[in-house]
Amino acid sequence: MTKEDVTAMILSAKRSSGMTWEDIAAKIDMSPVWTHSAAMGMNAMPKDKAEALSSVMGLPQEAALVLAESPTKIWEQAVPTDPCIYRLYEIVGVYGPTIKAIIQEKFGDGIMSAIDFDMQITRVEHPKGDRVKIEMSGKYLGYNSW
Amino acid sequence: MTKEDVTAMILSAKRSSGMTWEDIAAKIDMSPVWTHSAAMGMNAMPKDKAEALSSVMGLPQEAALVLAESPTKIWEQAVPTDPCIYRLYEIVGVYGPTIKAIIQEKFGDGIMSAIDFDMQITRVEHPKGDRVKIEMSGKYLGYNSW
Amino acid sequence: MTKEDVTAMILSAKRSSGMTWEDIAAKIDMSPVWTHSAAMGMNAMPKDKAEALSSVMGLPQEAALVLAESPTKIWEQAVPTDPCIYRLYEIVGVYGPTIKAIIQEKFGDGIMSAIDFDMQITRVEHPKGDRVKIEMSGKYLGYNSW
Amino acid sequence: MTKEDVTAMILSAKRSSGMTWEDIAAKIDMSPVWTHSAAMGMNAMPKDKAEALSSVMGLPQEAALVLAESPTKIWEQAVPTDPCIYRLYEIVGVYGPTIKAIIQEKFGDGIMSAIDFDMQITRVEHPKGDRVKIEMSGKYLGYNSW
Amino acid sequence: MTKEDVTAMILSAKRSSGMTWEDIAAKIDMSPVWTHSAAMGMNAMPKDKAEALSSVMGLPQEAALVLAESPTKIWEQAVPTDPCIYRLYEIVGVYGPTIKAIIQEKFGDGIMSAIDFDMQITRVEHPKGDRVKIEMSGKYLGYNSW
Amino acid sequence: MTKEDVTAMILSAKRSSGMTWEDIAAKIDMSPVWTHSAAMGMNAMPKDKAEALSSVMGLPQEAALVLAESPTKIWEQAVPTDPCIYRLYEIVGVYGPTIKAIIQEKFGDGIMSAIDFDMQITRVEHPKGDRVKIEMSGKYLGYNSW
Amino acid sequence: MTKEDVTAMILSAKRSSGMTWEDIAAKIDMSPVWTHSAAMGMNAMPKDKAEALSSVMGLPQEAALVLAESPTKIWEQAVPTDPCIYRLYEIVGVYGPTIKAIIQEKFGDGIMSAIDFDMQITRVEHPKGDRVKIEMSGKYLGYNSW
Amino acid sequence: MTKEDVTAMILSAKRSSGMTWEDIAAKIDMSPVWTHSAAMGMNAMPKDKAEALSSVMGLPQEAALVLAESPTKIWEQAVPTDPCIYRLYEIVGVYGPTIKAIIQEKFGDGIMSAIDFDMQITRVEHPKGDRVKIEMSGKYLGYNSW
Amino acid sequence: MTKEDVTAMILSAKRSSGMTWEDIAAKIDMSPVWTHSAAMGMNAMPKDKAEALSSVMGLPQEAALVLAESPTKIWEQAVPTDPCIYRLYEIVGVYGPTIKAIIQEKFGDGIMSAIDFDMQITRVEHPKGDRVKIEMSGKYLGYNSW
Amino acid sequence: MTKEDVTAMILSAKRSSGMTWEDIAAKIDMSPVWTHSAAMGMNAMPKDKAEALSSVMGLPQEAALVLAESPTKIWEQAVPTDPCIYRLYEIVGVYGPTIKAIIQEKFGDGIMSAIDFDMQITRVEHPKGDRVKIEMSGKYLGYNSW
Repeated sequence: MTKEDVTAMILSAKRSSGMTWEDIAAKIDMSPVWTHSAAMGMNAMPKDKAEALSSVMGLPQEAALVLAESPTKIWEQAVPTDPCIYRLYEIVGVYGPTIKAIIQEKFGDGIMSAIDFDMQITRVEHPKGDRVKIEMSGKYLGYNSW
Repeated sequence: MTKEDVTAMILSAKRSSGMTWEDIAAKIDMSPVWTHSAAMGMNAMPKDKAEALSSVMGLPQEAALVLAESPTKIWEQAVPTDPCIYRLYEIVGVYGPTIKAIIQEKFGDGIMSAIDFDMQITRVEHPKGDRVKIEMSGKYLGYNSW
Repeated sequence: MTKEDVTAMILSAKRSSGMTWEDIAAKIDMSPVWTHSAAMGMNAMPKDKAEALSSVMGLPQEAALVLAESPTKIWEQAVPTDPCIYRLYEIVGVYGPTIKAIIQEKFGDGIMSAIDFDMQITRVEHPKGDRVKIEMSGKYLGYNSW
Repeated sequence: MTKEDVTAMILSAKRSSGMTWEDIAAKIDMSPVWTHSAAMGMNAMPKDKAEALSSVMGLPQEAALVLAESPTKIWEQAVPTDPCIYRLYEIVGVYGPTIKAIIQEKFGDGIMSAIDFDMQITRVEHPKGDRVKIEMSGKYLGYNSW
Repeated sequence: MTKEDVTAMILSAKRSSGMTWEDIAAKIDMSPVWTHSAAMGMNAMPKDKAEALSSVMGLPQEAALVLAESPTKIWEQAVPTDPCIYRLYEIVGVYGPTIKAIIQEKFGDGIMSAIDFDMQITRVEHPKGDRVKIEMSGKYLGYNSW
Repeated sequence: MTKEDVTAMILSAKRSSGMTWEDIAAKIDMSPVWTHSAAMGMNAMPKDKAEALSSVMGLPQEAALVLAESPTKIWEQAVPTDPCIYRLYEIVGVYGPTIKAIIQEKFGDGIMSAIDFDMQITRVEHPKGDRVKIEMSGKYLGYNSW
Repeated sequence: MTKEDVTAMILSAKRSSGMTWEDIAAKIDMSPVWTHSAAMGMNAMPKDKAEALSSVMGLPQEAALVLAESPTKIWEQAVPTDPCIYRLYEIVGVYGPTIKAIIQEKFGDGIMSAIDFDMQITRVEHPKGDRVKIEMSGKYLGYNSW
Repeated sequence: MTKEDVTAMILSAKRSSGMTWEDIAAKIDMSPVWTHSAAMGMNAMPKDKAEALSSVMGLPQEAALVLAESPTKIWEQAVPTDPCIYRLYEIVGVYGPTIKAIIQEKFGDGIMSAIDFDMQITRVEHPKGDRVKIEMSGKYLGYNSW
Repeated sequence: MTKEDVTAMILSAKRSSGMTWEDIAAKIDMSPVWTHSAAMGMNAMPKDKAEALSSVMGLPQEAALVLAESPTKIWEQAVPTDPCIYRLYEIVGVYGPTIKAIIQEKFGDGIMSAIDFDMQITRVEHPKGDRVKIEMSGKYLGYNSW
Repeated sequence: MTKEDVTAMILSAKRSSGMTWEDIAAKIDMSPVWTHSAAMGMNAMPKDKAEALSSVMGLPQEAALVLAESPTKIWEQAVPTDPCIYRLYEIVGVYGPTIKAIIQEKFGDGIMSAIDFDMQITRVEHPKGDRVKIEMSGKYLGYNSW
């Protein structure tokens, strides 16, 4: 049983249950972003969360073990073509040097961690059309000298 | 006089003036993210902001015209190697399909615009080490059928 | 049942029915371009159109659900080799900067949306050989400053 | 004197004259799309048009000869990053197979020529936001068998 | 039944029949180059030729329909490694700009069509070793101005 | 003095002399294809031809030595974008496996040499539009076994 | 039955027979390099050698026919990662221009054929550690002028 | 003064002196292959050889120091297009797995070193056309286990 | 039975036995790094170690033979996306030229062997967070001149 | 004055002073690895170290400011061809998944930081040939769940 197998079981159980990612996340008391990402096999679940998710989705016992394993995170190396995902690359491409400049102005020579990291996505109402809000938070890490 | 020329003049004026991007942005009453990005030639400035920036930085007259022109936005097409910028690609690579899934759950079939878009970066104090917070906001656009 | 499965069922039903894309599009009261694209799994169908298409092509019930789901649009990232498709890339490659210049002259700093977008293809008679006419229409989106 | 030299002279003369591409095109009695493209060195000008453009923009004599030469058309081979140009690739990527299918349904086994080809761009008013209209027309060419 | 299936059936029938491509081409009264290319799924066959080939090779009825469909021509995008095919790329790479210069000297600003096109291959005896002769013929197409 | 320098001198002398490649080739008693290719630095000239060309074009003495040196042949490794040159790649891409099959049917296991090789280009009149004819001839080389 | 099938049969028979490539090559009276290469499907075997190999390895009758067919030689296009094979690329990368210079100094403007070619590999004893000796021999081919 | 500068000085001195690589190599008592490679900046010269070469070619004093420095060996990463160099890649591509198999049969699990390595190139007379002989010799290195 | 088959058998036996890589390595008296690497099929095992591992993991007899065969080492050629592995590439990318400079300062013109090589990984306690320590050791190899 | 300018000044001063990297590092009381890396513009120097280095190497005043700025770290994205640097990629390619497995066995789901990181290189005497020892140390960072 691989991470891909478990993802397929979760997607199938989700379809027949009619639950949204927000529903599922609420049942295991985690955020929807992290829950979806772990269900896709892109994050390892702490043991208790893996068991909670298995029980919510009615998965076989071995699934919780697999959900708790460290994944090898493989993502699209070329520019992804799906318009919704591509726009994120466009933002990072256009604003990457700006984000670097502002981080270094505010913190010093270092980076925002992508490991000690979390993210929230919300819908914000707006008279000219509702807006997507993405909030990312990562620990600042400064370079070492020796 | 090209966008690259104006960027070089701004960077040089900034160095000798000792101002930060936050200082400069405050003087033209815009955000630091957008101000840096426009100074780098990645966004066109409205005419009045272009003139304000020229005056703050002591640029020659023609510079304001150039700052107001539409740029051709060229960004790194391969994976960028600078660790601070790379981490942003890693986030978008790992969480791209998750962001897509959550947007479509909350809004329907569509995308977050990267054109009608803005971003803020702040430093958040934290006992285990301060954190970088990035907030993105983009208009939701739904696909057309015809 | 995936989008690919449904596409295969539609192509097979189309072959045995002898209908053209124009016939099929007429039956669900949409354009041939959009109908083909959605049948190929490159656009999500509104629920009623998904059900209409399923009924016209004699598909199983689940197919309408699949046709209504948001696709992950994956298209050829390298230069496509089919001569008919390649010529479109050649046009966009040669005339891309021109289209950008004319849009910005007519509208300001912004883009033509590929999301709020539609297209028509027609055959135009001509004494020296009939011509293909492609008409694209997309909403103008102006860049934000903040 | 190269095509690049002549392009630079035209852009500079345009800036100081204050003319738009539409103004320039009207003076040489050609379309703005073709005029911009030829000025960018992506199309050869018939001799009389090359001379008319040289005279309108106040170029040196040799420029007309250069404008009339066959260009080697070199365009961005990787996915271009400018959002306005990228959206065109997205359209061709998503709808390429659809355009091929509709052309072959309407004409037979063949292609739309990118050589015997023309294009118009217009602004269409619309209550929910004006739209960009791009019209392409190319001769149908059928494959040979022998 | 796909183009690949039909190609496999033709190759198998050819092997057991002992016919050469020249034999097969003669039976359907077409050239060996075009016949091989269509048998490989790289050209669509006119209906009567598709039926003739099916009958010569003893293919099932549906095969003639498939042979008559428009192919999506997918060819090696990277430099092919087979020495016999690579040498053709080497020729086109080394002599491409020369062929362009000579065509434009003899015809004007335009191209040799690869659609309205045919090719012959013959063996030419030579005292120092026989030679391969490849003759290509394509319609000249001149660029449009508008 | 490099091959590039000599090419530039030849092109400039050609422009001011008004000669075509055919004229120049006739003066040194070689074919236009080979003459253009050697003038572009893609073939080495035998000493007497190098001197003849230098004298015809009025080049400095050292130029003949450079024309006689072995070039390092560097050609476009990616798909070239110029439509006239691209069509040649399209032909080689679509018909490459066919040319290989026919050569091996007519000669055995081997290749057409691209070294012991020559080429002619002619204009062929045709009522539906004149045609470009390209004739290639290369020595057959059979693989060795040992 | 494909070349890959025959390769697999040979490898399996080799393993159970305990023969080395040198043993096998000796039985068919050819070199080990060529024998291995043909067994891998990278060279066509003359009919008698194909039959000899089939008989030595106990292959089914059809295998000899397949071994005698012209292969499409497909090899790793990217830099291969196996250290033993990579070192060969490193040698060719570092010394390629040197080999070209020495060949042209000794022979004139031309190449070493990779078609009329053979190779031997031997173990040479050496007090500081035995050495691998690779000897390549290819016919010199001079460029044509016409 | 860089390695490139010294290479240019050597080439220029060689042209005016009329010496071949074989002549130059003889004067410093090294092989022509290694001498050319070090002159091209692809190998570091022992101090005495660097001084000998400087004196033979009449180079300024600093040149010997530069010839003795460790180079950063940068070679063509894509498939090189020069036919003489390409054929070497073709040989390594086709015969790479064979060379690996024979080395491992003769030595065990390991590689031929490209560092403790040397090469000779000779012209071998042959009635059907002279042949290029390339002899490579590299120390066998076995993998470590720990 | 391939190397991949044996890897899968080892991973499955490891999961059911509950042993760590450190446990397994201790049982065959080798290091955990080398043991994991050989179990993944990236190193050949000496015969006795192959038999010991087979017996520890309860593998079928043929497995020991396969573990002892020379692997073809194929590793990710593009930048790997897993964050844990990517960081290693980042280190090598940033510090590669530094490592080269220091090696050449300490040893002369040459390299650190990746064949006569070993590695250890340990956990080092640290008050601000434990640290990963990686120790690599490879034989110095000096370039040859001849 | 850019980082590249300062690197060139340091290299030139180093050459004329005859100091090694070890000498320079000792004078500013830092390690040779970090000192070289910062001198190459791949790490920012703390202000006092930047001033110390400037004074040791006799650089102009502005140089210390430049050495203290955050660099944009750009390193070779393709496989580097220099054999000394390539071997490091080979090690990371072959052993990357092993390093990941051992880290996760010893620490949990996370990575070794390349930011809070240091490295030492030493020469280790050995009777069969001295060895290069590389020691890397990076802080362990565990993934977040939220």
